[in-house]
Amino acid sequence: MLHFRKNLYRILETSSGKRRGISLAFNLTLITIITLNAIAIVLHTVPEYNRRFARLFYNFELFSVCFFTVEYLLRIWVCVEQEKYRHWFWGRVRYVFSASAIIDFLAIFPFYFSLFATDLAIVRILRLFRIFRLFRISRYSHAFRLIQNVVVDKKEELILSMTFVIFMLIIVSSVMYYVEHAAQPDKFTSIPATMWWGVSAMTTVGYGDIHPITPLGKLLGGIAAIMGIGLFALPTGILVSSFNEHIRTPHRPMTRRCPHCGKEIVS
Amino acid sequence: MLHFRKNLYRILETSSGKRRGISLAFNLTLITIITLNAIAIVLHTVPEYNRRFARLFYNFELFSVCFFTVEYLLRIWVCVEQEKYRHWFWGRVRYVFSASAIIDFLAIFPFYFSLFATDLAIVRILRLFRIFRLFRISRYSHAFRLIQNVVVDKKEELILSMTFVIFMLIIVSSVMYYVEHAAQPDKFTSIPATMWWGVSAMTTVGYGDIHPITPLGKLLGGIAAIMGIGLFALPTGILVSSFNEHIRTPHRPMTRRCPHCGKEIVS
Amino acid sequence: MLHFRKNLYRILETSSGKRRGISLAFNLTLITIITLNAIAIVLHTVPEYNRRFARLFYNFELFSVCFFTVEYLLRIWVCVEQEKYRHWFWGRVRYVFSASAIIDFLAIFPFYFSLFATDLAIVRILRLFRIFRLFRISRYSHAFRLIQNVVVDKKEELILSMTFVIFMLIIVSSVMYYVEHAAQPDKFTSIPATMWWGVSAMTTVGYGDIHPITPLGKLLGGIAAIMGIGLFALPTGILVSSFNEHIRTPHRPMTRRCPHCGKEIVS
Amino acid sequence: MLHFRKNLYRILETSSGKRRGISLAFNLTLITIITLNAIAIVLHTVPEYNRRFARLFYNFELFSVCFFTVEYLLRIWVCVEQEKYRHWFWGRVRYVFSASAIIDFLAIFPFYFSLFATDLAIVRILRLFRIFRLFRISRYSHAFRLIQNVVVDKKEELILSMTFVIFMLIIVSSVMYYVEHAAQPDKFTSIPATMWWGVSAMTTVGYGDIHPITPLGKLLGGIAAIMGIGLFALPTGILVSSFNEHIRTPHRPMTRRCPHCGKEIVS
Repeated sequence: MLHFRKNLYRILETSSGKRRGISLAFNLTLITIITLNAIAIVLHTVPEYNRRFARLFYNFELFSVCFFTVEYLLRIWVCVEQEKYRHWFWGRVRYVFSASAIIDFLAIFPFYFSLFATDLAIVRILRLFRIFRLFRISRYSHAFRLIQNVVVDKKEELILSMTFVIFMLIIVSSVMYYVEHAAQPDKFTSIPATMWWGVSAMTTVGYGDIHPITPLGKLLGGIAAIMGIGLFALPTGILVSSFNEHIRTPHRPMTRRCPHCGKEIVS
Repeated sequence: MLHFRKNLYRILETSSGKRRGISLAFNLTLITIITLNAIAIVLHTVPEYNRRFARLFYNFELFSVCFFTVEYLLRIWVCVEQEKYRHWFWGRVRYVFSASAIIDFLAIFPFYFSLFATDLAIVRILRLFRIFRLFRISRYSHAFRLIQNVVVDKKEELILSMTFVIFMLIIVSSVMYYVEHAAQPDKFTSIPATMWWGVSAMTTVGYGDIHPITPLGKLLGGIAAIMGIGLFALPTGILVSSFNEHIRTPHRPMTRRCPHCGKEIVS
Repeated sequence: MLHFRKNLYRILETSSGKRRGISLAFNLTLITIITLNAIAIVLHTVPEYNRRFARLFYNFELFSVCFFTVEYLLRIWVCVEQEKYRHWFWGRVRYVFSASAIIDFLAIFPFYFSLFATDLAIVRILRLFRIFRLFRISRYSHAFRLIQNVVVDKKEELILSMTFVIFMLIIVSSVMYYVEHAAQPDKFTSIPATMWWGVSAMTTVGYGDIHPITPLGKLLGGIAAIMGIGLFALPTGILVSSFNEHIRTPHRPMTRRCPHCGKEIVS
Repeated sequence: MLHFRKNLYRILETSSGKRRGISLAFNLTLITIITLNAIAIVLHTVPEYNRRFARLFYNFELFSVCFFTVEYLLRIWVCVEQEKYRHWFWGRVRYVFSASAIIDFLAIFPFYFSLFATDLAIVRILRLFRIFRLFRISRYSHAFRLIQNVVVDKKEELILSMTFVIFMLIIVSSVMYYVEHAAQPDKFTSIPATMWWGVSAMTTVGYGDIHPITPLGKLLGGIAAIMGIGLFALPTGILVSSFNEHIRTPHRPMTRRCPHCGKEIVS
C-alpha cells in the first residue's frame, strides 16, 4: 500500500525516475482535459453551440469534475510523501492550504456548490469561476513561472511606475472633467467617468465613445495622449528589460576568474 | 519652547533620530488624509454620492483644511531649525516661497479664497485647484522624485525629440488640411482642428471622430500613423533608457571581493 | 545540350560567375513581373479599374502565367545541376517538393485549376491564392530571410509569451463576458465575441464597435488595456532585441589591432 | 565693398568670429519670423481669425516675403565667400541649386507665382507650399540634423523592415478583402480600400470606421493587430537604438589603452 502510494506520488507530482513514462502520459492527459475544459467553457457561451451540444457540454463537465475530484483526493492522500507535508494529519492540512491545492480545489468547488445553490445569481458567478480551471495549467507552464519571476523581480519598480501612472491619471482626468463637463455633461458626468476616458486616451486604445470636443479639452487630450505613451511605456520598458534578463541568463555562463588569485568566482 | 520647536521640527520634517516613531505616525496620518482627500474630490463629482454624502464631504473638507492650515503654520514656525532658513524673519520668508511650501499653500488657499468669492466661475476653478493637494504626497513619494530625475537627466534629448514631433505634427496636419478640407469641410475646418486628428493618429489613439475619407487623405493618414509610431517612440525610448539607468544604479555594487583571496575586483 | 543546361542553371539560380550580367537582368525582370502582378491583383479589385482595364488585367495575367510556367519547367529541368538534386528522376521529384518549388507551383496552379473549375466559390478562393505569388519575391528578399532568422532564433520565447498572452486573453474575456453580458446582451453575446473586444483592447487598437458600459466593466476594461500594453510588449521586446542582435553582428568586427604596436586587442 | 560682403557673409552664415553678436541677433530674428510664419499659416485657416485679422495676416505675409527675398538675394551675393562657391558666376549657380538655397527659394516662390496665377486650384496648392517655410528652421535645428543622422545611419535596416511591413500589409489586406467583401461590400470595396483598414489595425490606431464583422474576419483582424504590434515595432526599435547611439556618443569618451604597449587608442 505504502509502495503504491509512493509510485502514485511519482506519477502525479514528479516527472523523473522509474515511472517517468506513465507520469508524462498522465500529465499530458491532464493538460489536454484542462485545455478542452477552457474550450468548452468559452464555446458554451455561444448560444448556437450551447443549444446544439448542450448534452455534450454537460457530460464533459461531469466527466471533468469527476476526474479532477479523484485527482484532488489522490493528491491529498499522496502528499505526505513530500518532506514538508510528512505528518499524516497536519501535513495534509497544510497541503490543502498550499497555493496549488487551493487552485485545484477552486477547479471543482463551483460544481458541487451549484448543486445546492438555488439562487441563479450565485450559479452565474460560479460558472465564471470555472474559467479559473485554466490556472491549473500554470503548474506545468514554464511561461507562467517565468512571467511570475519577471514581475516579482521588478516588483518595486512596477509599483513605483504604477503609482505615478495612477497619480497622473487622477490629475489629468480631474482637469479634463472641469474643462469638458460644461460642454458634454452627459459624457464627462464625473471624475470617475472621465477616468475611463483617461485610461482609454493614455493607453492609446481610444474607443471613441467619449472624447473632448472643446478646443481646450482637445489640447489637454493631445497632451494626455503624448504623456500617456511615455507613462505607460515605463512599466512596459521595465517588464521587457526584466524579461530579457531572465531569458538570457541561462545562455551566458557567469563564471569568471579572480584577477588576483586566478580562482573561479560564480556571479 | 525652543526645545519643543526642535522636537516638532524633527516630527514634521525628518524621519530619523529620537522622535522617529512619532514622526512616522504623523507622516502616515498626513499621507492617509491626502489620499482620502483625493478620493473625496474624485467621488464628490459623482452626482449620486454628492447628494447622499454631501454633509460628509463638507465636514471632511473642513477638517482637512483645518489640519493642513495648522500644519502649514507649524511648518513656518519650525522651519528656522533648518540651516538655510536660520534667520527668524527672512528665513521664514524664504521658506514660504520654497517649492514645497508653495504646494502646501496651494492645498489650503482655494478654500479660504472661495469664502470671499461670489463669482461662481471662480469657485468652480478653485474646486479644481483642490486636486493639486495630491501633489503634497510628492514630498513622500520616491516615484515622484525618480520620475523627476529621469526627466531632468534627459531634458535636452526630450526637448529635441519633442521639437521634431511638433514640427512633423504641423507639417502633416497642414498637408492633411489641404487634402481633406474640400471633402469634409465640417470636420477638417482648419489646421488647428486637423492637428487634433494629427495627435490622435500619430499617438495611435484613433478616437474615430475625425478621419480622412479621400484616397489621398487615407494614404497620408496611413503614412502619418506609421511615422507617428516612430516619432512618438523616440521620447518613449529616451525615457525608458533613462529610467533603466536610474533604477539599476543603486542595486548593483560595482566593486566586490573575490571569495578566495578577499581582494577587490572591479566588474 | 548539357552545357546549355549548365548555363541556364547559372542564369536562373546563381548570380555569380561568367553569366552574372544575364542572371542579374533575368532576376530583375522576374522581380518586376512579380511586383507588377501584386499591383495588378490589388488594383484588379477596384471596380472602376477592373471595368476600364479588364482586357489589360486579363492579358497581363495570361502573360504572367505563361512566363511563370516556362520558368517553372526550366527550373525543374536544370535543378539536377545542383549537388543535392543530382539524380535525373528522384532529384527532380525531390526538387518539386522543396519549399521554393512549391511556392513557384502555387503561383501558377490557381490559373490552370480555374480553367476547369465551374464552382464560383472555388474560383474566388483561387483568385485569393494569386496574392501568394508575392511570396516568390522572398527568394530574393534579404528582409524576408532576416525576419525568418529573427523569429526562428527566439522561437521558444515567442511561443512562451504568446501562450501567456492567449491565456490572459481568455481569462480577461471570460470575466468581461460575465460582467457585461447582462448590460449589452447584443454585443457581448458570448466569450468568443468578447475575445474580439479583448484583442482590440489589449492591442490598444480600440475600434469602438464594442466596449464596456457598466462601471465594473469599464474598470476591468481599463485594467485590460494597461495589462495589454505590458503583455503585447513582451513579444515586441523579444523581436526587437533579436532583430538588433542580427543586424549588428556583421557590422562590428570583434577583434582589432592597436595602431601603435600592431597587436590584436579583444574588445 | 568686398570687405562689406565678407562681414555680411559672417553675419548670415556663421555664428563665430568678430561679428558674433550681430550674427546671433540676425539668426534669432530669422527664427522668430519663421516661427511666426508657421503660427500665421496655421491660424490663418481658422475662419474666425481669418475674418478678424485678415489685414494683419496679409501685411505679415507681405513683410515676410520681402524679408525672405532680400535675405535670399543677399545670400546669393555673399555665397562666393565660401570656398566651394568661389567662382563669381558658376559658384552662385551651384549655390542656387544647393539643398538649403532651394528650401529658401521654395519659401518665397509661392507668393510670386500666385501673383500671376489665375487658376484658383493652383493658388490653393501654393498656399500649402508656404508651410514648407518651416523647413527653413532646419538650418538651425540640432534636432533636425540629429534625426537625419539617426535615419541615414540605419537606412538599410529601415528599408528592410519597411519592405516587410508593406509585404505583410498587402498579404493581410488581400486575405481580409476576400473574407469580408461579401459581408460588407460597401466598406471592404477593394484591396486598396482594405489596406486603409490594414494600416489602421496594424498601427493600432483603429479609427473604427471600417472593421471586420464576420467571425473569420475578426479572427484575422485579431491576428493582424497582434502581428502589427510586432511588425511596426521593428522600425521603432531600430530608430530608438540608433537614436540612443547618437545621443550617447558625445557623453562617453572612447579612449582606452592598448594592453600590450600601454598607449592610448581612440575608438
